Amino acid sequence: MPVFTEHSTASRNLRVLPSFAPPLPRLSPPFEPQSGLDEKYEVLIVGAGPAGLMLNLLLSRYGLSDDSLLCIDSKPSTLKSGQADGVQPRTLEVFKTLGISDEIENEACHMWQFAFWNPSDKKDKIIERTAVVSEVLAPSRFGYEATIHQGRIERIMETDLLRYSKRGVLRNTRLIDVRIDEESDAEFPVVVTMNTNGEEKVVRTKHLVGADGAHSIVRQCMGLRLEGESLDHIWGVIDLVADTDFPDIRRRGAIHSPAGSVMIIPRERISTGEYLTRLYVHVPETVVPDSDQLLDGTNGVKAEDARQRRSKITQDGILQQAADAMKPYYIRPKDGVVDWWAAYQIGQRVSPEFIVKDSKGVARVFIAGDACHTHSPKAGQGMNVSMMDSYNLAWKLIYHINGLAPESTATGPPTPLLDSYQTERHKIAQQLIDFDRKFSTMFSGKMGATEGLTQEEFQQAFKLGNGFTSGCGVEYPESTVVVHDDLEGSMSPVKGTDYLSGILRPGRRLLDVRVLRYADGAQRHIHDDIPSTGRFRILCLASMDLLDRQSISGQALDSLDRLMPNFPASVIELIVLHPKLRREFEWDDLPACIKQRAEMRFHDGSALENAYAIYGVDPARGALAVVRPDGYVGVVARLDDVARVEEYLKGCIRTVS
Amino acid sequence: MPVFTEHSTASRNLRVLPSFAPPLPRLSPPFEPQSGLDEKYEVLIVGAGPAGLMLNLLLSRYGLSDDSLLCIDSKPSTLKSGQADGVQPRTLEVFKTLGISDEIENEACHMWQFAFWNPSDKKDKIIERTAVVSEVLAPSRFGYEATIHQGRIERIMETDLLRYSKRGVLRNTRLIDVRIDEESDAEFPVVVTMNTNGEEKVVRTKHLVGADGAHSIVRQCMGLRLEGESLDHIWGVIDLVADTDFPDIRRRGAIHSPAGSVMIIPRERISTGEYLTRLYVHVPETVVPDSDQLLDGTNGVKAEDARQRRSKITQDGILQQAADAMKPYYIRPKDGVVDWWAAYQIGQRVSPEFIVKDSKGVARVFIAGDACHTHSPKAGQGMNVSMMDSYNLAWKLIYHINGLAPESTATGPPTPLLDSYQTERHKIAQQLIDFDRKFSTMFSGKMGATEGLTQEEFQQAFKLGNGFTSGCGVEYPESTVVVHDDLEGSMSPVKGTDYLSGILRPGRRLLDVRVLRYADGAQRHIHDDIPSTGRFRILCLASMDLLDRQSISGQALDSLDRLMPNFPASVIELIVLHPKLRREFEWDDLPACIKQRAEMRFHDGSALENAYAIYGVDPARGALAVVRPDGYVGVVARLDDVARVEEYLKGCIRTVS
Repeated sequence: MPVFTEHSTASRNLRVLPSFAPPLPRLSPPFEPQSGLDEKYEVLIVGAGPAGLMLNLLLSRYGLSDDSLLCIDSKPSTLKSGQADGVQPRTLEVFKTLGISDEIENEACHMWQFAFWNPSDKKDKIIERTAVVSEVLAPSRFGYEATIHQGRIERIMETDLLRYSKRGVLRNTRLIDVRIDEESDAEFPVVVTMNTNGEEKVVRTKHLVGADGAHSIVRQCMGLRLEGESLDHIWGVIDLVADTDFPDIRRRGAIHSPAGSVMIIPRERISTGEYLTRLYVHVPETVVPDSDQLLDGTNGVKAEDARQRRSKITQDGILQQAADAMKPYYIRPKDGVVDWWAAYQIGQRVSPEFIVKDSKGVARVFIAGDACHTHSPKAGQGMNVSMMDSYNLAWKLIYHINGLAPESTATGPPTPLLDSYQTERHKIAQQLIDFDRKFSTMFSGKMGATEGLTQEEFQQAFKLGNGFTSGCGVEYPESTVVVHDDLEGSMSPVKGTDYLSGILRPGRRLLDVRVLRYADGAQRHIHDDIPSTGRFRILCLASMDLLDRQSISGQALDSLDRLMPNFPASVIELIVLHPKLRREFEWDDLPACIKQRAEMRFHDGSALENAYAIYGVDPARGALAVVRPDGYVGVVARLDDVARVEEYLKGCIRTVS
Repeated sequence: MPVFTEHSTASRNLRVLPSFAPPLPRLSPPFEPQSGLDEKYEVLIVGAGPAGLMLNLLLSRYGLSDDSLLCIDSKPSTLKSGQADGVQPRTLEVFKTLGISDEIENEACHMWQFAFWNPSDKKDKIIERTAVVSEVLAPSRFGYEATIHQGRIERIMETDLLRYSKRGVLRNTRLIDVRIDEESDAEFPVVVTMNTNGEEKVVRTKHLVGADGAHSIVRQCMGLRLEGESLDHIWGVIDLVADTDFPDIRRRGAIHSPAGSVMIIPRERISTGEYLTRLYVHVPETVVPDSDQLLDGTNGVKAEDARQRRSKITQDGILQQAADAMKPYYIRPKDGVVDWWAAYQIGQRVSPEFIVKDSKGVARVFIAGDACHTHSPKAGQGMNVSMMDSYNLAWKLIYHINGLAPESTATGPPTPLLDSYQTERHKIAQQLIDFDRKFSTMFSGKMGATEGLTQEEFQQAFKLGNGFTSGCGVEYPESTVVVHDDLEGSMSPVKGTDYLSGILRPGRRLLDVRVLRYADGAQRHIHDDIPSTGRFRILCLASMDLLDRQSISGQALDSLDRLMPNFPASVIELIVLHPKLRREFEWDDLPACIKQRAEMRFHDGSALENAYAIYGVDPARGALAVVRPDGYVGVVARLDDVARVEEYLKGCIRTVS
C-alpha cells in the first residue's frame, strides 16, 4: 500500500529480529570484574558438550554476561563425529520452551515405534517380529523420540547462545587444575588453572561446574570417583545407509537371534536424500575400566592397554555380527560405504557426590553430565540426562547469584537451593544406571523359550522403563523445592496416583495440555505459558463457582494478587484455567486480577482437552500448583490454602518488603 | 560414552548444519558469465520486498547461483517500518514447505477469531458484539492467520536466502531503465540500467522480474498501467499498545458504530512483554490517485498535492476516530506512546498484462506483487498475494532456464509454461481487487437495521470471501499446467464438488491431511512430502485390492514405474497412500515399486484422517493426481489411466530418451 505519511518509534526497528528471552532481575550488587588483579567470574563452566552448552545457554539467557560467565572447552569446535544421537520427549519439551526445538522437529528422525524381533520356532524363519510397541508410552507434548547427530544438537545450542553471548565458548582451552582456596579470596574461592591456546593462566570464580565428560578433570581434582562395578562391556556401533531387506529398518528395533543381538536406531535423512541407520552390537567380552573411573584407582588400565583392545574390533567385525544376527535378511552398507563406526567400553557408575562445598557449607563446585554418571548409550539417555542436569542446576545457580534465593537462616544450610541439585539429580543418575544395567544385561543376553529371559520380560522391562527413558516419568524427592502434599482423602486437592498420565504431583513435570485462550480464542499448549525464562508460575485451576461473588476462586485469586508483590517483580507469573462454566461471561464477570495479571494466560481448560481430569483436579473445588522454573511442580494446594503456596515460594524466592 | 576407537567419513562433518534444499538438475548448458563484455544474468529481480525476496529465495534454492541471479533493491536494508502484517494460512503452508515457518508459528500473533460489533438497540450500549466467527473457515494446515511485522517476514526470508546465496540482495541499487533489445544480443535481450551505490551501469539479462512495488519502474518502462477506478480512499492506520476496556481487543474485529468504523488487528508480543494492536480507520474523503497508477496518465496528481493532503491526517485524528467508534469503551495508547502510524490512499487496480514478450513470443519481463495489483490492506492480502505471485512464477522460470520445460513445438507458443504465470495470477489479482472493493466498501459504510447493509450481509461477505482471503480457495484456470477432468459421473476418479474442503480439483492446492507412514509408524502431514524443492509429485491413492496380484493399483504402479525414467532424474517423486486394507501386510506383499520409489512416502490414508473421503476418492477404485511444484493439483486420473498422467507431465516437463 502506498503510504504517504508515516511516523514510528525507534524501538520498532528492532522488531525485525527474533525475540529475546527476558533476563531475570538482579537484586545482588552488580558484578564488576576487577581489572589488574586476578581474572574473576561468577560461574565458570568446564566443557561445552551437551551439559556444558545447555548450562551456558541458560545462564546467558537468564542474564549473566560474558564478564560474569565463562565456558571453556579443550576442543577447537563443536563435536564433528558425534556419539549420542537420541533426544527424548522430555528434552524436546524443554527445547520447545527455549524456542530451539524447530530444527529437531523438522529434520531429525522421529522414532514412533519399537519393534521386537526374536528367535522363531518356524524352521524357515530364524527370527520373527514378536511385537511393535510405541516408542513413547508416556503422554508428552512429543509422541516420539528424535535421533539426530549430537554435533547438530550442540550447534543448535551454540547458535542460540551467540544471540546472548558475544564470546560464546572459549575453545582450545584445557583445564589443568581446580582447587578451593578461601583464604586468599573467600568470595571467589575456586581457583582454576587452564591452558588457553598454549598459554597457562589462573582465574578465580565463585562457582565452577565440571561438565567435562567421563574422564572429568574437575571430578578428579575434587577427589571424587565414580562408583560401580569393576568390569565394563565392549560395544561396537556403526552408522550407515543400509542396503537391506529387513522389514523394520526404519523402526527402532531390538533383534535377538540365535547368532547374537543387534539394536537398530533409525537416524536422520542426509543430504543425499537417503536415511542413516545406526546399529549397536555387543562384543562378548568384559574388560577392566580406565583407572580414573574406579572408586579404587589402583586397578585401572592404562591408555596402552586400551590401544591393544582396539585392534580386536573392526568395521568388518561389527558388520558381520549384525549381518549374522539379522539372518535370513541381508544387510550391508549401501555402495560399501560406512558413515562412521566406533567401539567403546562402558559400565554403569555414578559419583556419590555432585557438589563440593567450601568450609562454610556453600556449594562451590558442581559436576554434571558424564562427569558424574556413565552408562551405555542403548537406552538413548546420555545426552538427555546430561542436559537435564544443567536444566536443573541453572535456575538454582542464577537465583543464588542474582540474590533471588531466600537469605539463609542462622541454623539451616547456607545454600539449600543449590544443595537440592544433588538431592534431585543424584537420584536420577542412580535410577539411570540401575535401569541401564538391567536393560543392557537383558539386551546382551540371548532370548527365546529355551533361554533365561523371555521376550515378554524384555518388552515388559522396556514398558516399565519408558516413563524413565522418555524423561517424562522423572520424579524428584522431597526438598526445599519439592513439598509433598500430606493431605489425605477429601482434603487433598488432587485425586489419583497415575502421575505419569498427568496427575499433579510435586517433583514431576507439569504435563502439557491443550487449552483455549479466553482473550482471543487461540488454541494453545499450556507449556507455551511456561517458557524457560527462569520464572515461577502459580497455576490456578479455578473452581466452577468462578463467576459467583465471593467464590473460593475469587478469594484465592485475591489472596494471590496480594501475595505476588511480596516477591521480586516479574519473578512469579500467574496462569489461570477455568472448567466448563454454566454460562457465557465477559471480563467484567471475572475477578479483576485475572485480566490484570493473566489476560493472555487465562484459558478454558475443558474446550480442547479436559485439563482438570488430566491433572486430577475436581472442577467443583479447583486447586493451586506452583510450577518451578524448570517446569516441575513444586507444591499443590487447595484453593483456600494460598498460605501453603506462599510458604513454598518463601522457601525458593526471597521476599521484598 | 568413552569411545576408544572411531572412524568416520568426511561428509559426516557437515551434518552439524541445517539441511539444504536439493537443487534441481540442469539440462541446459551451464551458465558462464562472460568476463570483459557486458555483465549478464539469467534472471534479474528488481525489488526485495516480500515478492522479490520470495522469488530470489526460491530460485537460489532451486540452484541458480549468484553468477546467474541478481536481485537489486534501492533501500539500504530490510524494511524497518513495515506496512503489511498479515500472513494467511496458505502462505504459512508454503513457508512450512520451505522450512521457514517456525518463527511465525512461535512468535507471531495468531488470529483465530473475528468479532463483529454493530450498533445496539439498547440505549446504554451504543455498540454490541453480534458475532464471533473463526478467522479461518477453510480447512488448512494452519487454523489461524498470523500477524507480524513485515520487516520480520523479509528478514526471515533473507536469512534463509543467505544460506544459498553469498551475495544476497544487492542493496542501494536503483533501477533506472529497462528495455528489450534483441538485435545486439538475442539470448540476453533485456537491457537494464541501474545506479548502484551512486554509480550507473548497464547489465543484460535473459529475464527480468519487476517486484518493485506500486510505483513500479519496471511496469512504467514496459508501458504498462494499472487499470481501475479513478478515485482512491484514504485510510489511517496506527500500531499501539492499547490501554482499553474493549472486551475483544485481542480478536480481529470489525466495529461499526454510529460514530464510524474501526478495524482491529491484534499484533505480536513485543520485548516489553506487551501486545501490539493495529487499528484501521477510514477517512471519509476520496482523492485522485498518483499519475503513474492511472491508465490514462494525464489526470494524476503530483507529489506536492500528496504532501498537502498529508496535513489533514494526524495521529490524534486517527486515535479520536477510533475512540469515538469504540464508545462506550475507552481506548488510548498505553503511557501515551504510539508505536507507528501512517496514512495511505488506496484504490483497486490491476495491470492487464503481467508479462512482456520479445518479438519471438518468449516471455522476458514479468511483474509481480504490488507492481501489478494494488488494493487495500484490510483483508490482509497484500504481502500474501505478492509472495504467491513469486511462488507461482519461480518454478516455471527455473524449469525454463534449466532446460526442464518441454521443447516448444513449431506451431505453439514458445514458452507456454511461462505464459501460464499470466493466466493464473492475473485471474487471482482480478479476484483480489474485486473482493477488496466489495469488502472495503462494505467496511466503510455504516451499518444497522436502519441503514443499507445489514451486519448479516457483512458477515456473509466475510464468510464467502474467506476461501479467497485465506489463500486456500485459490483456483487456477485451465492451461498447460492445469488440466481439468472432463469425465463425468461414474467415470470420474473424484466425487464431490466441495473443493474448499479438500476434494481433489485441478487448479487447487492439495489440502494437507495427516497420514501414518508405513515404514516407521510416524505420524506425518502429507505436506511434508511436498516440500518446495521444485519437484512434481505423482500421488497414487491405491485401491483396496492393493494386496492382490494383478490389482489395478499394482498395474498403475507398474506403469508409473516405467513412466518415471522418461523424465529427468529426481524431478518427479512418487507418493502412495493406501486405504484401510483387509489384512496386515509386509513389504513383500506390495508392488515392488512402492518400496523402491516411495519407501518413506507410503502412508496409511485412513489411520489418522480419512484422506480418501477428504479428497473425494472411492477407496474401491483409487485415483491418481499430479501435484505441481507449487503444491497445486495439475491433473487427476483414474488408476487405469496412467496415460493421462503421462500426457500431463509431458506438457510440463521435457522427456529424456
